[in-house]
Amino acid sequence: MSQRTPCPSTVEINEVAPRDGLQIEARFVPTEEKIRWIDALSTTGLRRIEATSFTSPKAIPNLCDAADVVMGIQRRTGVDISVLVPNLKGTERALACQVDEINLVMSASDSHGLANLRMTPEQSLEQFAAIVDACQDSGVFINASLSTAFGCPFEGDVPETRVLRLVEQLIALGIQGITLCDTTGMANPVQVKHLCDAVLERWPQTPFTLHFHNTRGMGLANALAAWQAGITRFDASLGGLGGCPFAPGASGNVCTEDLVHMFAAMDVDTGVDLDALLEVAATLPTLIGHEVPGQVVKAGKSTRRYAMPER
Amino acid sequence: MSQRTPCPSTVEINEVAPRDGLQIEARFVPTEEKIRWIDALSTTGLRRIEATSFTSPKAIPNLCDAADVVMGIQRRTGVDISVLVPNLKGTERALACQVDEINLVMSASDSHGLANLRMTPEQSLEQFAAIVDACQDSGVFINASLSTAFGCPFEGDVPETRVLRLVEQLIALGIQGITLCDTTGMANPVQVKHLCDAVLERWPQTPFTLHFHNTRGMGLANALAAWQAGITRFDASLGGLGGCPFAPGASGNVCTEDLVHMFAAMDVDTGVDLDALLEVAATLPTLIGHEVPGQVVKAGKSTRRYAMPER
Repeated sequence: MSQRTPCPSTVEINEVAPRDGLQIEARFVPTEEKIRWIDALSTTGLRRIEATSFTSPKAIPNLCDAADVVMGIQRRTGVDISVLVPNLKGTERALACQVDEINLVMSASDSHGLANLRMTPEQSLEQFAAIVDACQDSGVFINASLSTAFGCPFEGDVPETRVLRLVEQLIALGIQGITLCDTTGMANPVQVKHLCDAVLERWPQTPFTLHFHNTRGMGLANALAAWQAGITRFDASLGGLGGCPFAPGASGNVCTEDLVHMFAAMDVDTGVDLDALLEVAATLPTLIGHEVPGQVVKAGKSTRRYAMPER
Repeated sequence: MSQRTPCPSTVEINEVAPRDGLQIEARFVPTEEKIRWIDALSTTGLRRIEATSFTSPKAIPNLCDAADVVMGIQRRTGVDISVLVPNLKGTERALACQVDEINLVMSASDSHGLANLRMTPEQSLEQFAAIVDACQDSGVFINASLSTAFGCPFEGDVPETRVLRLVEQLIALGIQGITLCDTTGMANPVQVKHLCDAVLERWPQTPFTLHFHNTRGMGLANALAAWQAGITRFDASLGGLGGCPFAPGASGNVCTEDLVHMFAAMDVDTGVDLDALLEVAATLPTLIGHEVPGQVVKAGKSTRRYAMPER
């Protein structure tokens, strides 16, 4: 059994902007630009990139070029390419592109599952069983993201017991990694610590990833609480791209460069070259056509020095 | 000796927007509007309001009406009115207005002290001795804010030993409360926890306040770390007003309503009526003429519920 270590000295960052960030953008980012962007990201030391979603082009027009993107990018040793798959058909398309990892998605709450995926959690689990079967012998890593694990925007509290039961069912199905998602930024640090403690205690061998949004400003505080519990894998989105369509003006996903910066300041190794990452982050406003919420790209790193003002 | 309690169940919020927030605003907020605003804030359950600064009108034109503001506001039981004083003259003006608390300010680093106050830390301490003398028998509470306690934008790291020595000297002078300020958002949670542990261990009887900026997105994470160490007093600025003139586009002070929201979500009692506070926060863009960084006022509280989308 692996030993749980609170406040781990190394963590892994999974960059989700090309999928979770782009899916709600108004402007279509041309396939060539997506490829150049992902190639730039894959040289920064990020451990994993969620490159796109093999979903219906009608559902998410911005990601209609999923196969072209995955086949177009440079594959680098040490950088896993993950893609979101919504169903069996998407899984087959993803496997044909030789991705390293597929990310299934379901909701912990009935109403969010019905609103977002037209499926209850039970229906999602049934579908996952078929997907796991289809992946036999493919060698692909199967991750599942559990949305609304910290609360549902329609029905409110999602009991921890319910989340734990769903995690148990996912593991029983043969899912290898699980991402606990604070889909609409409802989590708080005490709640995060409690749930992370619970899953790490019960399933010390399962790689758990935490996915936070900064909707109410608590993104980094929640990441801190998860890290204090011993979590070593974090989703994050360059520039803080992405977010919740229900909260106009609110921040999106936790910002990759701000998260990497916090870990670096705390002497926690992410493997990421922060300067290189900040250079890519600085290209975002041109790529997507608007400013983004990331702070460090505007303020500079905390090690930045200023000249004394002239008198 | 008082018992130190990590993760305290109650905390106090000191609202600094009328002073720290307004001082860098381009537009002068008319005295009447300041008074209405502070009066509104003082009904929300905030424990303390830093209402203005008795500084030179030439240095900070926005706060040229300090005495009129303090004499014009309604004084409420349970809400201490604090003001910043830069020198003995400011102290005398403040005492004439019957404030509850004066807040002296000095830098932990030489270069920031010289750039910001034209004084080294040693010169500041000398001046403080004279101010403490002048306050004998006034009954006013004397607080000192220690700027750059977590790093200096000019000289970089500020050793913890230096901060601890300055705290010791302040207490020896008769300063009653001390605010440790992350003036330009350089602190990280591990550093915060370490310094807070150190001061609470050595001076369990002294009220320590923590003052964070969200310059690099870590404001709430740092507040969380301080709270975990046992800190019960926090500066915050409505809307996240304020900030660092060196970092254009970066966030300012940690946002009061976002901080209160995080504590409320963690079941920590701030005494603040969050809904009432959010109502006041919503008036800020009109008061100061631009948008502010606060997140919860845009996203709503994490308990907010949405109707299921129509099919």
